[in-house]
Formats: sequence, structure tokens, C-alpha cells
Amino acid sequence: MSDKLTHLNSQGHAHMVDVSDKDMTKRIATAQATLTMQATTLTKIIEGGLPKGDVLATARIAGIQAAKKTSDLIPLCHPLMLTKVTVDINVISDCELEVLCTCSLSGKTGVEMEALTGASIAALTLYDMCKAVDKGIVIQNVSLLEKKGGKSGHWSKGDV
Amino acid sequence: MSDKLTHLNSQGHAHMVDVSDKDMTKRIATAQATLTMQATTLTKIIEGGLPKGDVLATARIAGIQAAKKTSDLIPLCHPLMLTKVTVDINVISDCELEVLCTCSLSGKTGVEMEALTGASIAALTLYDMCKAVDKGIVIQNVSLLEKKGGKSGHWSKGDV
Amino acid sequence: MSDKLTHLNSQGHAHMVDVSDKDMTKRIATAQATLTMQATTLTKIIEGGLPKGDVLATARIAGIQAAKKTSDLIPLCHPLMLTKVTVDINVISDCELEVLCTCSLSGKTGVEMEALTGASIAALTLYDMCKAVDKGIVIQNVSLLEKKGGKSGHWSKGDV
Amino acid sequence: MSDKLTHLNSQGHAHMVDVSDKDMTKRIATAQATLTMQATTLTKIIEGGLPKGDVLATARIAGIQAAKKTSDLIPLCHPLMLTKVTVDINVISDCELEVLCTCSLSGKTGVEMEALTGASIAALTLYDMCKAVDKGIVIQNVSLLEKKGGKSGHWSKGDV
Amino acid sequence: MSDKLTHLNSQGHAHMVDVSDKDMTKRIATAQATLTMQATTLTKIIEGGLPKGDVLATARIAGIQAAKKTSDLIPLCHPLMLTKVTVDINVISDCELEVLCTCSLSGKTGVEMEALTGASIAALTLYDMCKAVDKGIVIQNVSLLEKKGGKSGHWSKGDV
Amino acid sequence: MSDKLTHLNSQGHAHMVDVSDKDMTKRIATAQATLTMQATTLTKIIEGGLPKGDVLATARIAGIQAAKKTSDLIPLCHPLMLTKVTVDINVISDCELEVLCTCSLSGKTGVEMEALTGASIAALTLYDMCKAVDKGIVIQNVSLLEKKGGKSGHWSKGDV
Repeated sequence: MSDKLTHLNSQGHAHMVDVSDKDMTKRIATAQATLTMQATTLTKIIEGGLPKGDVLATARIAGIQAAKKTSDLIPLCHPLMLTKVTVDINVISDCELEVLCTCSLSGKTGVEMEALTGASIAALTLYDMCKAVDKGIVIQNVSLLEKKGGKSGHWSKGDV
Repeated sequence: MSDKLTHLNSQGHAHMVDVSDKDMTKRIATAQATLTMQATTLTKIIEGGLPKGDVLATARIAGIQAAKKTSDLIPLCHPLMLTKVTVDINVISDCELEVLCTCSLSGKTGVEMEALTGASIAALTLYDMCKAVDKGIVIQNVSLLEKKGGKSGHWSKGDV
Repeated sequence: MSDKLTHLNSQGHAHMVDVSDKDMTKRIATAQATLTMQATTLTKIIEGGLPKGDVLATARIAGIQAAKKTSDLIPLCHPLMLTKVTVDINVISDCELEVLCTCSLSGKTGVEMEALTGASIAALTLYDMCKAVDKGIVIQNVSLLEKKGGKSGHWSKGDV
Repeated sequence: MSDKLTHLNSQGHAHMVDVSDKDMTKRIATAQATLTMQATTLTKIIEGGLPKGDVLATARIAGIQAAKKTSDLIPLCHPLMLTKVTVDINVISDCELEVLCTCSLSGKTGVEMEALTGASIAALTLYDMCKAVDKGIVIQNVSLLEKKGGKSGHWSKGDV
Repeated sequence: MSDKLTHLNSQGHAHMVDVSDKDMTKRIATAQATLTMQATTLTKIIEGGLPKGDVLATARIAGIQAAKKTSDLIPLCHPLMLTKVTVDINVISDCELEVLCTCSLSGKTGVEMEALTGASIAALTLYDMCKAVDKGIVIQNVSLLEKKGGKSGHWSKGDV
Repeated sequence: MSDKLTHLNSQGHAHMVDVSDKDMTKRIATAQATLTMQATTLTKIIEGGLPKGDVLATARIAGIQAAKKTSDLIPLCHPLMLTKVTVDINVISDCELEVLCTCSLSGKTGVEMEALTGASIAALTLYDMCKAVDKGIVIQNVSLLEKKGGKSGHWSKGDV
């Protein structure tokens, strides 16, 4: 890894890093976010073992659309042409949901921020749809799980 | 609080809730996100006690701009005319930053999602600026701290 | 009705009409779009009488989000703060779906364009999700069904 | 053609299809929309044989800009770098206008949705500019006329 | 006028100023931009005394749409619901065009930035359409001409 | 240079020029904007020789983000994937600031408009942050300084 903050120039000013001369390689990144809520809230989302109506579908769509808007949201991100975005939502305990977002493309910069943005906005959309019944939901563990491709190569949260 | 998911109609379909007849009241909400990182990463952001260059300023601007985009990001949020957005970033330990976002307006719906979106995107922007040195940063505790105004009145995380 | 094109000034130049002095009244509009497809395509969307997975949910979300973007898409539309948007999708024959979009707010201009934009984009999203199996789907009858409120009052397609 | 809805995964969840490994080929698509209006409305748009002022220009610009926003409007569309967009508006009877939109690029996915979105928004813009005189205008025949390029090759509405 | 930069808090951090408690008043602002070009370029735009085709219409539309996007472009601007936007383009010498943009609304903050943004983007659009024949065009005098309404009242460039 | 306005077709209608068959080459462009203000205003921005708080950082971020939005703002611009954007702000006299914006990519069209848009919006953001103390600030000299790459090759303002 680098030992300096690459988004600042030598004077400490923010700039969008020059990637003009970087190679085009296949990039993939997966990010996670979890939501901790009351068990009764989770029951309302998942009724009788089946995802209820549009709640999960709305969150998946919101995450996919947000991943595409990343360069508009994170000021120093490069605009990218994502070739794949998926958002999966899993029940991981009686009071926790897990959101996973995977993005990929063939390009000059990585897609970590796209995966993190997709996971975050999908999680916030779940919060939005549940806040009338449970304002105390907390989003935890927003983090990169894995990335592949590019000069820095493979990175996995488990390896650190 | 309600005991049902108000963003679904009786058939389980997502809709944007009708707030046409709700009163205009002063609304305010504050949300939080924290970032856990290596102590050496935090030192790079904060050099000699002073915020370094544009890192914190960039995150503040990103959070403010994201709060204004909330209805574009969270599918069932109403468009709102925010009258105030602030983003504050505090060092809360030798390896943790805290982002606080406060939004307010006089309107028919609350601004919880705006505050949560502002805090989340500011935190993601900090991640983006630091990921070249520390990909393992984790965003935690994305949560509503307090809201005031509207029919449901005052709510504070500490009271739950 | 007016007998001139109000979006042009006296020189024929496009402008955004001045509504500064119009009254705030409750406005509501409903628009329609229908899709004509092969019966086998409709069967794939509706399996065994139940909406399949995310197809209809995705179209509803797309329509709701598009209605909120209307002033960004239709150059001379005023920015509005919609207080309600719903998108409903109905099977109206063995090869036809109907999309209905209703928008409302309390404001100075009508919401006809918001309802029409929501219905159109929901219909295009259905096309997108089905085009791998049926490129010949045609969107018909994109039209205003009814509007209420404002100086011109009530208007219904059936009355014309 | 495919015999399944490719925008759903095996569980029926919406995802943005992975096109990472598809070839870059030249793609082109043309879509149509028609507007049926009162003959007196069409006369107001077309005075003395010449397009009046900014009406048609505004619709052309709106269509071009909308084609560029397609991936923001249609949730599962990939972001694309269009290399050409044209919008043409023709009088096809004494009460009908036809909008044609053609898009092209060299890329991994087709541009059918871009052409359809451009034609639809141009048609809605014409509606917007004429609605003060004729609310009953109906947009018909929103459809793909032709596409070229990609694995599925040439497709023409007339061939079906 | 104020004697401090109101967009910074006491620590020098950017924030979106709180206007929650300001009065709603009628606001209006007019801004200007001029373009200096080769006389032959201006002739190409204006042929035989008549605006040529879509050049001026395109610039007017771009300016109107940009005025509506101001809070997305200028980080600390409040989102506003403009009730009027006009863009006028005048020939003021044999090598100069003048762009005037006027915005208004009834609201809590002024519309100076909206008028300046509309004038700037209309001028840049003219540059874009002419740059194939004249890359040396210079945009000058981007400035506020007049504003009315709000606590600071009337201000006119000529009075300073 | 061309001797006609390439953004109009043979009928004078605006279109987005077809660049499908142009070569991918490295493109770079630098644009300028200057701000003339009262000397006391400039002193408030620059206190004791050091940039004050977030003023310049906010303007740099706004310029970078605007450069990425160029194809959404300037109707006939192609969407581009910028690989570098920098915004620099320099004091050039006791009452003047200069904004320089440089953009680059490897692509089929030039990045002049991106550089001009970035410089303009950064300058407008400076105006916004200073308008409470000095409404009479004027933005001058919005112009292309230099471009490289593409069929028309190198161009420099100084050479004209």
C-alpha cells in the first residue's frame, strides 16, 4: 500500500488522481453493510420466511442505482462504466440483515467505492422503509470485503 | 410509532407516502457515523493537531451535497428544501473519527434520511481519501441520534 | 384552455413560465401508459397469477424516481416538491399491461408532466426487463387521464 | 432471442447483468414515438410551413439530454458513453408528429433503451409545450424500429 | 452587507447557512455574461439578421436547466423551487453576444447564484457550439446586475 | 479549424455529433477564469498568507465535480470518462484570483468543455462564498488556455 494520501497533491489540495496511463484490467470489489434492528422489525420485513413485497426489491434497486452514481457522490472518484452490479440481502440472525454489493468493470481504477456506496445506500433504504416502526436501527460494518485487479492486486478483509 | 411498514401499500407495493395534508412544522435531525482505522492513518489525516489540507473539507462538502440529493438516492423519500445542513468531523480516539450531520427545514416530512445520508457519504468520502493507505477502515454506528418536530415529536437514541 | 403556446415568449423563445404569483392549491394528476406484448412475454412476467420477483417492483420504483426528476428531464418544467407518487401496474388483457401513475402536491403549478413522466419511465423499465425475450413490445396510450386543482380546474380524458 | 428475463437472477431478484466479458462492437438503435393531437394544435407548432420558434428545438435538446441520462432513469441499464444521439421530428399527418431518436456507440451493450428514452422524453416535452392548448394529446407507438450490432445482431420492427 | 464570509462557521468550516427562520419574500435576480468572438463567428450564428437554427435555442434551454441545478453545482446553495427562469441572448456589437438570465421565486434565500449559473452555462453552451470554428472565444463580465427582495433588499451593479 | 458550426445538421437542427469512428487519443485541456473583487474581500479569503479554512477547498471540489457533470450541463457534449481533473486557485493581484482547471482522458473527443465548466463553477462557488461581503465581484476571462490531442492537435491561446 501507499504511505501517503494520494487524493491530496503536494500542497495538501484535493485533486482527482491522474489515471490516464494506468492499464485497463478487470476489477471486482465486494462490500458489506449490516443492519441491527429489533427482532419484531425483521419479522415485519420477512413474513413467514418470504421476503415481503417490495421492501428488499426497493433496497436492491436503490443500491444498484447508487453504485452508478458514485462519481457524483464521492468528489474525487473517477466516472466509471460499471459492467456489473449486484446487491444481495441476507438474514444473518433474528435481528440482523446483511447487505452485500459486488461491482465490476474492465477499467483503469478500482470499484471499491462503487461497492461501498451501493451497500450503504441499500442499507439506508432499508432503514427508510422501516423507520416508521423502528428508528433505532443501526448500520454497522460498512466495509470492503474483497477486491481483485489493478496494480495493488488482490485484497481481502480476512487477510489483514 | 407505527406498527406497520408505511412505505408499502395494502398489497405490499412500494409507494411514496402521501404527505399532502400533513402540517408544515420545523424539523431537525442529527445522525452519526464513525470510522475505525489504523492509528497511523488517523495521524496522516491529522498532522500536528491540525486538520490536513483538504481531507476534512472534502468530506464535509460531500456530506452536505449528498444530504441535498437524498430524494434522488432513497427511492421513497420526498423531495425537500433543506434550510440547513452541517457536517462536523471529530477525533474521538486515537483510531476513530466521528461524523455528525444535522439537517433542518420547515416542512411536511422529517429529515432523518437526509442526516443519515449526509453522514454516510461524508464517511465514505473519508474512506475514499484514505483507502490508498488503509483499505481496512470500517464505518460503524450509522444511526439517528435525535429528531425533533412532526407528529411523532422528539426522539433521541439515548431514550430507547 | 389557452389558445397559445405559453412556453414561448412573444418572440417564439422558450422560457420557464412565471408562476410566482399563482396560488398554492392542492393538485393531483393521473397518467397512463399501456404495453402491448406477446402473450408468452406477459406470462413470463406473471407466473401462476403472482407478480414474478422484482420485475413489477423495479418498474414501480423507476416510475416513482422519474416523477421526482421531471424538472430535470422536461426543460421548461418548474421544480416541484411532490407530496405523493404512486405507480400501479395492472394486467388488462392476455397481452397488455397498464401503468398508472398518480402525483400530487400543494403548489403553484400542476403535476401532469410528473404523472406522465412516471408512467413513461415505468413502462420503459418494463420494456428493458423484457427486451431480451420480446423486442417488439410497443408502449401505447401515454396520456393524461385526469387532473384536479389550479385555475383550469378539473379535466378528465373521458370528458373531451 | 433469450427465453428468460435476463434482468432477474435465479431467485427472481433484479440485478445489473454482467457484461464484463462481452465484446466491444459498434451498436446503433433507432426508436420512434408519435403524438396525436388536434389539427389546430399542430398548426400552432408549425406556422406557415416552418417550425415555430423554440418548440421543436427544445424537444430535440430534451431528447438528446435524456438519452444521456438513461442509466440513471432505467434502473438496470449500464452506464454508457454514447458517441452519437440525434432526434428528428417530422409531421406525418395533419394531426400527428413523429419523433425518431437514433443512438450509437462502440460498446458492450446495446443502445435500444437510450433511443427509446430519448424519443419518449422528446415526445413528453412536446406535450408539455402544447398542454396549455391541448391536454388530450396522446403519445403512441413508442417502440424500437431497428437495432444493429452485438451478439443478437440486426433486428428490425418490420421483420417481426 | 456582512463583513464576514457567512458560509464558514467560527472554525472556518464550510456549512450550509441556516435559513429556517428567514421570511418568505419575493426574490428576483438578473445576471449577465458576455462572449467576445471573431466577427465571422458571430455572423455564422446570426445569418441575415435571423438567429440561425438551434444555436440560440440550445443555449437558452441549457441556461434554464442549469439554473434549476444550481444547488447541485454550488455546494453551499440551498435547494430552491424557482418559479421563473428566462435567458435572453442579444447581439451587442459585431463581435459580442450578451447573455442575460433572470430568476425569481418566493422563498427564504436569494436567487443570485441561480441567475449567475444560468448565464454562465448558457454562455458555455454558445462556446461549445462555436468552438469548432473559434476556440479563442472569451466569456467576460459574468456578474450580478440586480437583485430584489430579502433582508438586504435591492442591489444594483450600477449603484456600486 | 472548421468553417461551419458542427453541432447543427444541414437543416440547422442541433445534434450530438457522431464521434463513433474517431480515434482514441490522449486529450488534455486547461481553462481559466479570473475573479476581480475588492481588495478587502480577497484579504478575508487569504488571511495572513494562508488560505482561510474551507473557502478554496470548497471551490476546488465544486470545480472537480462540475467537470464530471459537463455532459449533463452542456446539451451537445458527449459523456466522457475523465481520468484527471485538477483545479488550482492563485492570487494574481491584490484584488484578483485566478482559477485554472485541467482535465484529461484517453478518448474520442476533446475535454475543452470539461475544463471550462470546471473553471466556471469553481469561480461561481468563490462568488457564492464571498457574496455576503461583496456582491460586485466579476468573473472575467473564462477561456481555453491550451488543448492537446485529437485530430486538430495542439492549440494555445497565446498562439492566436
